[in-house]
Amino acid sequence: MIKNLQQQIHASQTGKVELVLRNAKVADVFSRTWLDADVGITAGKIVAVDYTRSLVGKTERDVEGQYVVPGFIDGHIHIESSMLTPSEFSRILLPHGITSVVTDPHEIANVNGAEGIQFMLDDAAKADMDIFVMLPSSVPGTSLENAGAVLHAKDLAPFMTHESVLGLAEVMDYPAVLNGDETMLEKLLLARAHNLIIDGHGAGLQHMQIRGYRTAGIHTDHECVTADEARDRVTQGMYVLIREGSAAKNLRDVLAAVTDANAHRFAFCTDDKHLDELIEEGSINYAVQLAIEEGMDPLLAITLGTFNAAQCYRLYEKGAVAPGYDADIVVLPSLTTIAPIAVFKNGQLVAQNGELLVARTERVEPSVAITQSVRIPTVTNADLQIAFPVSNRANVIEIIPNQIMTKKLVTEVPVENGYFVPSVEQDLLKLAIVERHHNLGNIQAAIVKGFGLQSGAVATTVAHDSHNALVLGTNDDDMIVALEALQRMQGGFVIVNEGKVIGELALPVSGLMTLLDADEACEQLHALHDALHVIHPPIDFHLFLTLSFIALPVIPQLKITDIGLFDVDLFEHIAIQIDK
Amino acid sequence: MIKNLQQQIHASQTGKVELVLRNAKVADVFSRTWLDADVGITAGKIVAVDYTRSLVGKTERDVEGQYVVPGFIDGHIHIESSMLTPSEFSRILLPHGITSVVTDPHEIANVNGAEGIQFMLDDAAKADMDIFVMLPSSVPGTSLENAGAVLHAKDLAPFMTHESVLGLAEVMDYPAVLNGDETMLEKLLLARAHNLIIDGHGAGLQHMQIRGYRTAGIHTDHECVTADEARDRVTQGMYVLIREGSAAKNLRDVLAAVTDANAHRFAFCTDDKHLDELIEEGSINYAVQLAIEEGMDPLLAITLGTFNAAQCYRLYEKGAVAPGYDADIVVLPSLTTIAPIAVFKNGQLVAQNGELLVARTERVEPSVAITQSVRIPTVTNADLQIAFPVSNRANVIEIIPNQIMTKKLVTEVPVENGYFVPSVEQDLLKLAIVERHHNLGNIQAAIVKGFGLQSGAVATTVAHDSHNALVLGTNDDDMIVALEALQRMQGGFVIVNEGKVIGELALPVSGLMTLLDADEACEQLHALHDALHVIHPPIDFHLFLTLSFIALPVIPQLKITDIGLFDVDLFEHIAIQIDK
Repeated sequence: MIKNLQQQIHASQTGKVELVLRNAKVADVFSRTWLDADVGITAGKIVAVDYTRSLVGKTERDVEGQYVVPGFIDGHIHIESSMLTPSEFSRILLPHGITSVVTDPHEIANVNGAEGIQFMLDDAAKADMDIFVMLPSSVPGTSLENAGAVLHAKDLAPFMTHESVLGLAEVMDYPAVLNGDETMLEKLLLARAHNLIIDGHGAGLQHMQIRGYRTAGIHTDHECVTADEARDRVTQGMYVLIREGSAAKNLRDVLAAVTDANAHRFAFCTDDKHLDELIEEGSINYAVQLAIEEGMDPLLAITLGTFNAAQCYRLYEKGAVAPGYDADIVVLPSLTTIAPIAVFKNGQLVAQNGELLVARTERVEPSVAITQSVRIPTVTNADLQIAFPVSNRANVIEIIPNQIMTKKLVTEVPVENGYFVPSVEQDLLKLAIVERHHNLGNIQAAIVKGFGLQSGAVATTVAHDSHNALVLGTNDDDMIVALEALQRMQGGFVIVNEGKVIGELALPVSGLMTLLDADEACEQLHALHDALHVIHPPIDFHLFLTLSFIALPVIPQLKITDIGLFDVDLFEHIAIQIDK
Repeated sequence: MIKNLQQQIHASQTGKVELVLRNAKVADVFSRTWLDADVGITAGKIVAVDYTRSLVGKTERDVEGQYVVPGFIDGHIHIESSMLTPSEFSRILLPHGITSVVTDPHEIANVNGAEGIQFMLDDAAKADMDIFVMLPSSVPGTSLENAGAVLHAKDLAPFMTHESVLGLAEVMDYPAVLNGDETMLEKLLLARAHNLIIDGHGAGLQHMQIRGYRTAGIHTDHECVTADEARDRVTQGMYVLIREGSAAKNLRDVLAAVTDANAHRFAFCTDDKHLDELIEEGSINYAVQLAIEEGMDPLLAITLGTFNAAQCYRLYEKGAVAPGYDADIVVLPSLTTIAPIAVFKNGQLVAQNGELLVARTERVEPSVAITQSVRIPTVTNADLQIAFPVSNRANVIEIIPNQIMTKKLVTEVPVENGYFVPSVEQDLLKLAIVERHHNLGNIQAAIVKGFGLQSGAVATTVAHDSHNALVLGTNDDDMIVALEALQRMQGGFVIVNEGKVIGELALPVSGLMTLLDADEACEQLHALHDALHVIHPPIDFHLFLTLSFIALPVIPQLKITDIGLFDVDLFEHIAIQIDK
């Protein structure tokens, strides 16, 4: 430590450094100007931004007047949504110039609890990028379903002093905060006692609710969908993380709130972004590019994507190209397309022209509790029956393609011998959720409209937030085959037709993440989509994405949990059949 | 803790609060706009900034459209320079709207070491304002003199976890930093290991030196005297604390460096400011007023004096009027004269119309080691003799009134029987410094020009940075009387004429601070100045201030330490007599 510091100081004074980036146009995020200078790097730190061209490096790279900016920082992302483990996730984003992310292992924590968080921390430590962790604040997401774990303040406490932990993750249960619920406030006070940050989750919250949120010490919101929401949150003292992911794309709407005076309170995040889009577009580099397209000063957009995120998360040695800062550096040929020609992490060249240059480090082997997390009981046709003894009027879940909301539809459904029969013609299919964590034996069937399967069945263990097993089908037999496959695969996505598995992607890490390399995972994902076309020729929406939110009981209108059909407006479980 | 938080959240949601400031023009430092709103306060925190006029308070105060801004924060001040203990210092600044200061107990640490720091922390805890401490990094200031203590990293370590300690104070020994001196880097790494801040002291440092300083992790500089210096420091990643004190007045010059883009990296400080000026002008309120006079947007100036200082020192719940922030609030009738009509600390009204409203809390009794820190040996006429056996040419210290620099003057001096004789006519007086910490017996006499005493002698224990006993006189007898008085008083300022003490201000706390109330201290200070006129009728400069820097051996050109006359340019001790 002292030796490194001595080397760095010596290099800064002698100009003899390990690496020189010559002829750079350097981003000064402090004064928002571009500097014509050489950048000197030693022992992982920037030690000089030199105007006199007098640095001498063991290695020198002429960047020929290209832009040298800090590495991009993602303020909020759920790595599980990429279906990759942290160390593999790191490998697909470094080439896009993302050198740090702040992640919330909310999904794995809902399956494997503290052991899941520890796995993410351990595997993150193997990553080439810096992966910082916010501790999940809402496990389980709600009391309306059975998840794999329950995390109270005492369970989070041991993680609070971990060097990669920055605070408490998005506090979703805002009623608990605003009602002063002690088990919730204990978590907030725990984070505050460690002088750590608390992320918010202000989806749709009004001024009064944000006021209470802020009073509780909640520091950020990434759920703004309008400029007015963003302005209000900044004025009330929050940082706003402008979100641009796969499902939620809020950048264009929220950007209008940013002014020269308040820009220091904005940063970027993705929240959730799919594997294929991450590989293709990247994340924060893409957000910066969109902001520039929208007319934001390029250096200001870069500042939001780097320095501001570092300030928000108190990463004081990141987010700037200046002496004493981490040598996380991106070289950009253009400010219209934000595509790094070179990416340096701690002074090491890790990617060039979009290609990763570092070898894959041995990843952390997940424990058996993590790789054997799926416990789907044997399901029989009887288990999936939906009885209609006296009528055929039913409460039906009607999906809205690509949205996490559903509609509550009341309609007559096909019934034979007193039991519901799925109808492809009427697009009234059967949905079932099976508790898969603790062998509770909870199996709940429901009727769903809008998925439009022509035959067969699909199943997944990616089902927010409790990640129980979900199966959707045109017939019970294929649904049972799909559930059996899911159990065999230890989770993932599966497609069944005429009794056979025709497509699958195994996600054996808590039923959420693959152990495959990103490229192989991407190939299998495309094969999965092809297989989907067999049973769903005209598909024009993300079926699995839409399916994965159908068990999320905090989002209107009608959802399914392992405890039963849930009417979000009534906020109670209801029956499927409606008596005449 | 949880009860307070529950009360605060409940108040934010019901609008039933302890205190309402009605009809306020509220400073939004995040968006740099003024909000017409009511401010709600409960349990020491702001819980609402309400536009709907719907708050109900146990207490309500109509501020009639006046400006409601955060309490002012002084980023760097040596409280000892006020000659008051921290708890008393707090009482004179609160009425000016200063609710937090960051202090460096460098002076007392040079006398009493760790025990002195502990006294400052303990007495600060009694203060009505928040007093945060940076741990002195340079005790002793140099190795060219004998101070009362030596502080290494191991001595500072126990303080690093104290809740009021924010980091390591101004690192004055920049050569040690730039040379990678281990004992210095250990202190820097100690602060960094605790995720604390390191203040700089970049007086006159050039770009290259600031580069090394920043590489070492040094975070702030308050020594900028030009706009160019400030720009360079900001671009290299430092915060700049714009200083406006008694001796150093840099605000007008440095302000030119501030732009809309870089303003977030500037705050204000005083460094050193005299008792009478603090009482009369205040500190940061005065800096804000000057900045506004200089044409800075008033809200931006207020932001520098509040939010930016809080951000720089990582005081995350200070510096803004927004929910969840400390209710440290100042009400201003005008933005041209920054004179608070009301000051609230943690939601309590502590000052009104410049009058303090809170009773004096029992101050911490300093230990005997602190109140008996002065150990001046018996000094005889022989001890003060300056021998000129072979010539009467001498190296003479020529002072520059009100400046900490001196000139080296080589001239002939009056000599009788081989010894120097002071001459009022030629203004060649005798100066002596007496080591007063450890009874080392070091007594060094010198010849000084420029003070212009007509008779008698003056003495003080305020002598930066080692605070040995300094005496200046027209004759040895009065000088000895002055030293004896200083010993009896246990330090302070004393004026002697014709063998009698005609003026004194005792500073028995480490020979630097009084135990008197601020008003009494101020009265005695004026009496002292009156007495000074008796022996120095035409005095038109700060004699004691100028005298107090004559023993500071890091400032050119010719200084005196207890080890001898010191030539700063040669950087060695030299003889007084110059042989023919």
